[in-house]
Amino acid sequence: MQFIDGGVTAQQGYFATGVACGIKKNGEKDLAIVCSEDVAATAGVFTTNQVKGHSLKLTMQRVRNNGYANALIVNSGNANACVGDKGDMDAREIASKAAELLDCSPDEVLVASTGVIGVPLELDKVLKGVEEAIGNMTPDGGHDAELAIMTTDTVPKEVAVEIELKGERVVIGGMAKGSGMIHPNMATMIVVLTTDANISNKLLDKALREACATTFNRVTIDGEMSVCDMALIFANGLADNAGIVNEDADYRLFCETLEKVCLFLTKKIAADGEGATKLIEVQVNGAKSAEDAYKVCSSIARSPLVKTMINGCDANWGRIITAVGYSGADTDPNRIDIFLNRIRVCRSGAAAIYDEDKVREQLAKDEVIISVQLNYGDHSDRMWTCDLSEEYIHINGSYRS
Amino acid sequence: MQFIDGGVTAQQGYFATGVACGIKKNGEKDLAIVCSEDVAATAGVFTTNQVKGHSLKLTMQRVRNNGYANALIVNSGNANACVGDKGDMDAREIASKAAELLDCSPDEVLVASTGVIGVPLELDKVLKGVEEAIGNMTPDGGHDAELAIMTTDTVPKEVAVEIELKGERVVIGGMAKGSGMIHPNMATMIVVLTTDANISNKLLDKALREACATTFNRVTIDGEMSVCDMALIFANGLADNAGIVNEDADYRLFCETLEKVCLFLTKKIAADGEGATKLIEVQVNGAKSAEDAYKVCSSIARSPLVKTMINGCDANWGRIITAVGYSGADTDPNRIDIFLNRIRVCRSGAAAIYDEDKVREQLAKDEVIISVQLNYGDHSDRMWTCDLSEEYIHINGSYRS
Repeated sequence: MQFIDGGVTAQQGYFATGVACGIKKNGEKDLAIVCSEDVAATAGVFTTNQVKGHSLKLTMQRVRNNGYANALIVNSGNANACVGDKGDMDAREIASKAAELLDCSPDEVLVASTGVIGVPLELDKVLKGVEEAIGNMTPDGGHDAELAIMTTDTVPKEVAVEIELKGERVVIGGMAKGSGMIHPNMATMIVVLTTDANISNKLLDKALREACATTFNRVTIDGEMSVCDMALIFANGLADNAGIVNEDADYRLFCETLEKVCLFLTKKIAADGEGATKLIEVQVNGAKSAEDAYKVCSSIARSPLVKTMINGCDANWGRIITAVGYSGADTDPNRIDIFLNRIRVCRSGAAAIYDEDKVREQLAKDEVIISVQLNYGDHSDRMWTCDLSEEYIHINGSYRS
Repeated sequence: MQFIDGGVTAQQGYFATGVACGIKKNGEKDLAIVCSEDVAATAGVFTTNQVKGHSLKLTMQRVRNNGYANALIVNSGNANACVGDKGDMDAREIASKAAELLDCSPDEVLVASTGVIGVPLELDKVLKGVEEAIGNMTPDGGHDAELAIMTTDTVPKEVAVEIELKGERVVIGGMAKGSGMIHPNMATMIVVLTTDANISNKLLDKALREACATTFNRVTIDGEMSVCDMALIFANGLADNAGIVNEDADYRLFCETLEKVCLFLTKKIAADGEGATKLIEVQVNGAKSAEDAYKVCSSIARSPLVKTMINGCDANWGRIITAVGYSGADTDPNRIDIFLNRIRVCRSGAAAIYDEDKVREQLAKDEVIISVQLNYGDHSDRMWTCDLSEEYIHINGSYRS
């Protein structure tokens, strides 16, 4: 597997672009299209929030009913959520407009929206944007599409890798937006993956679900779960690989690669969490059950006290063991060891002997690994998050203004 | 029922004071004693964190085994938690020293500690402090005791009320410290309640549990649960009321009053949450079950996006409905109404027509009530929290420094 340049248009057969249609007040790009030359096998993972955005609901339905699609329209700046029947109609209208221009069935166009909740879309603007985007999309427009789906993101998040499946080159590309309202089981924020692999949509779905479980469902920024989150994958089969229809070696390589692509984007999302100054990886080993390992990971990763402590480069490990204690997992506090970037700060539930300055130096790095050894079983898990800074409050105190 | 001046020494038969024994680096008071003239019936509610501080473990054991106690020593600035066997020995040593000076059994002295985790106590300093405190305690030293248990609190939290039980005056007083690591089921931070009521310790225990359920177990500052949290009550029986030994009218009035005392302290704790600029009350009505009502309350009250939005006076109600959606409660998003200080901002799951300026004016007040009508059943709950400000990060990024 090799990383290559590009994102969703890194491979053959995809067109994309991003335009500014006027949803974002500052005139930045706010509407993206990703379009496959041929109809593509499609799979998706969607938020588990009971409240669901209108665009998301339509896409969820179409992905589940059809398993194939041609294009995806994403707008940022407005979630198209909680606006009543108009929201459902708008979503269908956007898809229909695109379908008309692309000469395909409306069912084959998917829609995603992200931004403020409860404000109706200005449909005219969006439809004009769709027209402009379709008129301008190119085989190397992936980056522009990524720019158009960003909200409070500070850096674009794109990735592409190539692998060989029985001698044939296959590419998987992807793009993502964060960067607040991030927590497991919402399939993170909007992620779009494309591949030219030839793979059945059933296996594509399985591969996506498995990859999400250990990546996008293991990132938390603030414990929030948006109503618009989804991860979508398109596979247009234009590569010359023999079709993947069984869980054979090709399938396994495809899955491994997809997981790496998702992991890359996951870390990008965590590192660019709202107000983040660093990426935090939480590793938990020695749990009694897989569920307990997850509980401990999640409890630490969402603890504001742990996150502010990392922000302040303060080795206050008492907050980490406190989060273990209230996680709901079955543990023995007297067996717990805690490491910060490999330096042991807690041994058997009490302070270890360590050099404060050296730990402080480690905590000042861009990436901090919190490793907790429960010594109580043989299950592990890991999760990604970021530190919590004053900037998070600043961003979110006046998001709509 | 009438509010009167004072706190834990507002009634007869209690002595208290607070001294500076050198645990806090800044020379502020850090050791408190609350002592009953006679042995008092005692009850307590303790953190459910699996990790428990050494002082808390001793007190929990003594309250459960005995049901009677004479005095309580509380130190702030150090949690006496996660320091190994020395922590257990220190807790016992502190109680023994106090017992010796008070001429009572060590079993009748309780201990509480709050502050940094994982750092051993300097026992010599603490024992000297115990001596000084016992030498200086007075029948009106409640306020000094309160000052000595504060950590990041910015205001003292004291309350006292008087009631009549069959013509006899009975007083209940209390003090509390917050103000971070606050979340339900840890019985909040340290709360000490005193009364001169004559009541059996079995009913005292029941009354305390019931009062905590709707007050201290309904406040969240940051979703954290400390390892040292407890609420203790002492009843020394010096009032002339006929002993409360049945669940009669006197008992019910005692319970009602105790709940009001606890509610007063609960609101004080929430309003003084770390970095807080205002008190938030979350009210949920129309839930399908009591559990669902709690889930929705809790989900909203701990949402950093809701809390930052209130901090920024931004009526971004989409974040509230989002938190309802991921709460895990069974709801129908299309039936949800949301009110901010009585102004309806969301009707049937979509934007209501309201005046942005008027809502902003309401959100700028010291108290904001978020009321969610689920219209899906007849269960209610309420919870208190505070807004999330940049100051929270500032306080917690460098807590130990």
